[in-house]
Amino acid sequence: MPHHDIALIGFGGVNRALAEIIHTRGPELADELGFSLGVVAITDLRLGSLMQADGIDLGAVLRMPAGATFAGLPGGAAIPQNDHVIRHTTADIVVEATFTNPVDGEPAVSHVRAALESGKSVTTTNKGPVALAGAELNRLAREHGVRFEYEGSVVSGTPVLRLASEALTGLRVRGVQGILNGTSNYVLGQMESGMSLTDAVAEAQSLGYAEADPTADIEGSDVQLKVVILANEILGADLTTADVERRGISGVTSADIIRAAAEGSRFKLIGSAYRDDDGTVTARVEPMALPLTHPLASVTGPTNAVSFDTDLLGTVTISGPGAGRLETAYALLSDIIAIDAHLRIAGEVVQ
Amino acid sequence: MPHHDIALIGFGGVNRALAEIIHTRGPELADELGFSLGVVAITDLRLGSLMQADGIDLGAVLRMPAGATFAGLPGGAAIPQNDHVIRHTTADIVVEATFTNPVDGEPAVSHVRAALESGKSVTTTNKGPVALAGAELNRLAREHGVRFEYEGSVVSGTPVLRLASEALTGLRVRGVQGILNGTSNYVLGQMESGMSLTDAVAEAQSLGYAEADPTADIEGSDVQLKVVILANEILGADLTTADVERRGISGVTSADIIRAAAEGSRFKLIGSAYRDDDGTVTARVEPMALPLTHPLASVTGPTNAVSFDTDLLGTVTISGPGAGRLETAYALLSDIIAIDAHLRIAGEVVQ
Repeated sequence: MPHHDIALIGFGGVNRALAEIIHTRGPELADELGFSLGVVAITDLRLGSLMQADGIDLGAVLRMPAGATFAGLPGGAAIPQNDHVIRHTTADIVVEATFTNPVDGEPAVSHVRAALESGKSVTTTNKGPVALAGAELNRLAREHGVRFEYEGSVVSGTPVLRLASEALTGLRVRGVQGILNGTSNYVLGQMESGMSLTDAVAEAQSLGYAEADPTADIEGSDVQLKVVILANEILGADLTTADVERRGISGVTSADIIRAAAEGSRFKLIGSAYRDDDGTVTARVEPMALPLTHPLASVTGPTNAVSFDTDLLGTVTISGPGAGRLETAYALLSDIIAIDAHLRIAGEVVQ
Repeated sequence: MPHHDIALIGFGGVNRALAEIIHTRGPELADELGFSLGVVAITDLRLGSLMQADGIDLGAVLRMPAGATFAGLPGGAAIPQNDHVIRHTTADIVVEATFTNPVDGEPAVSHVRAALESGKSVTTTNKGPVALAGAELNRLAREHGVRFEYEGSVVSGTPVLRLASEALTGLRVRGVQGILNGTSNYVLGQMESGMSLTDAVAEAQSLGYAEADPTADIEGSDVQLKVVILANEILGADLTTADVERRGISGVTSADIIRAAAEGSRFKLIGSAYRDDDGTVTARVEPMALPLTHPLASVTGPTNAVSFDTDLLGTVTISGPGAGRLETAYALLSDIIAIDAHLRIAGEVVQ
């Protein structure tokens, strides 16, 4: 049976969830997918690095007590030698799930670059590398005959990018619009029930939806990065964040929301990208009062959704979870499945 | 460039729309898809049969005056010799878009069987062959090394089946539920606005949504066939229509709808199939009062939608058009794209 060895860069909630999935349902998954998976390297800020070409015992790693590190294990070190591990691991797929610096995408961009340069395919859940360096990294992947996949960079494991690439082929997609941030969507919903913006944000924080600093969620810069990804990936644009006009929800008042409700509409923070008649793609992030019959109007709470405006089918909408540990780990698994399929067609997986 | 010759069985609205798409954007489509398409056979109840192995001039056929037939054209006959054409056409893909007899699926079942037996791949928009003879026809396709595709048999060109097969791989789908009939959905919406069932059905008929005999829409037997397809295709069940308990919307009263609205919910005709803990699949069609926060509650008018209940992602929902000439022609095109991809992986398309 074909086999892929993977390296986990970052061992926080998402990569840990992926390790749990591989550990608990490996044989069953292999039966279904037609290939098996092993983990041969892990790096983590707190745990350090671990490289074992014969395969890491995931059960043992998942059971490690709090505070323990990889130091002392065969192939282990207390320091997370990300670049060294990425370049020298025997893995053929690198799973990048560290964190996103929204300004330059580091350190994730460097991780992805190192992996592609050393001939490994990459899956990441980080928006940063895709939104800020997507064109360069996709080119690198092509040059090295490997794949760069990032379903989880937009709407977690909900297959927005894969729906577009696999199931809407042959259509002209004129535009996309979406609810791409669960926190702001939750906050707008609570404001509709009479809560103030400040109280709603505090509640979202206490529920774990919002970050300690909720600015990126509330002011739309999280959505801005995702709109760049959707525009470039689905409309073939070449946008950077500076090209995406951005207005968050901090300017939306309770009075606005009440007035909208009286008119049969509902405020949503909408990220959109449309191809104009001259071929230019215009993208923006803004709060919009949508009529209740709009396919995005009823997407509530932490659920996200994207609508595709197409020539032959009109509007097609997909909705699903926009965050979550298991949900995002599934995005990685779905990318690994896509990488396997592509490499197998190219004849680069040993059958 | 790889090429596929296709045969159009039935030349009503849907196959005519497909012919228009191929005629007006052939070269552009070929660039995008990596293969070209030609039509080498057409049969139709009114037009007769036409077989031209070098490729039919679609422009000329689309411009034929009302009342004209294929008689007198090279390879033409006034009679639609479906079985003969299907078995003897030089096409490698047969596009079946005649009509569905909901009892035995004929004549579509025979058309599909003849095509598969003579080594041709098939795409159909007919529910009949899939719901009533799907297992047999899929087995025939495997035996002959060809493909049987039927995206348009459920929710028109909205890629419900392909989302499940291409973009939800690796998930356990525990169940599906959907709004699968536009007419009944439109009627329930009008009843919510105070119209009687009878008036709403009459209006749906005048708008062209409902058939002259709306029984299959109103009493749920149209949805019943689609639930069989979803259960068998997505949950791997082996159901027949008799296994799907069915209740339509004729028993739903205005009083029911008003009471539901007062409780913050909305009646929808829901087709569903769920896998129980013991592996059995239970499927039914019934009107349900859904809370407004339910992902299917806000799917209005002729729009259809299907929600997948999955282990790692929770609920993922896709919505889009449930009918329409172009929309259904796209289902056929998407099937042809899938057939090409499969045959190409199998090495059976000349590159």
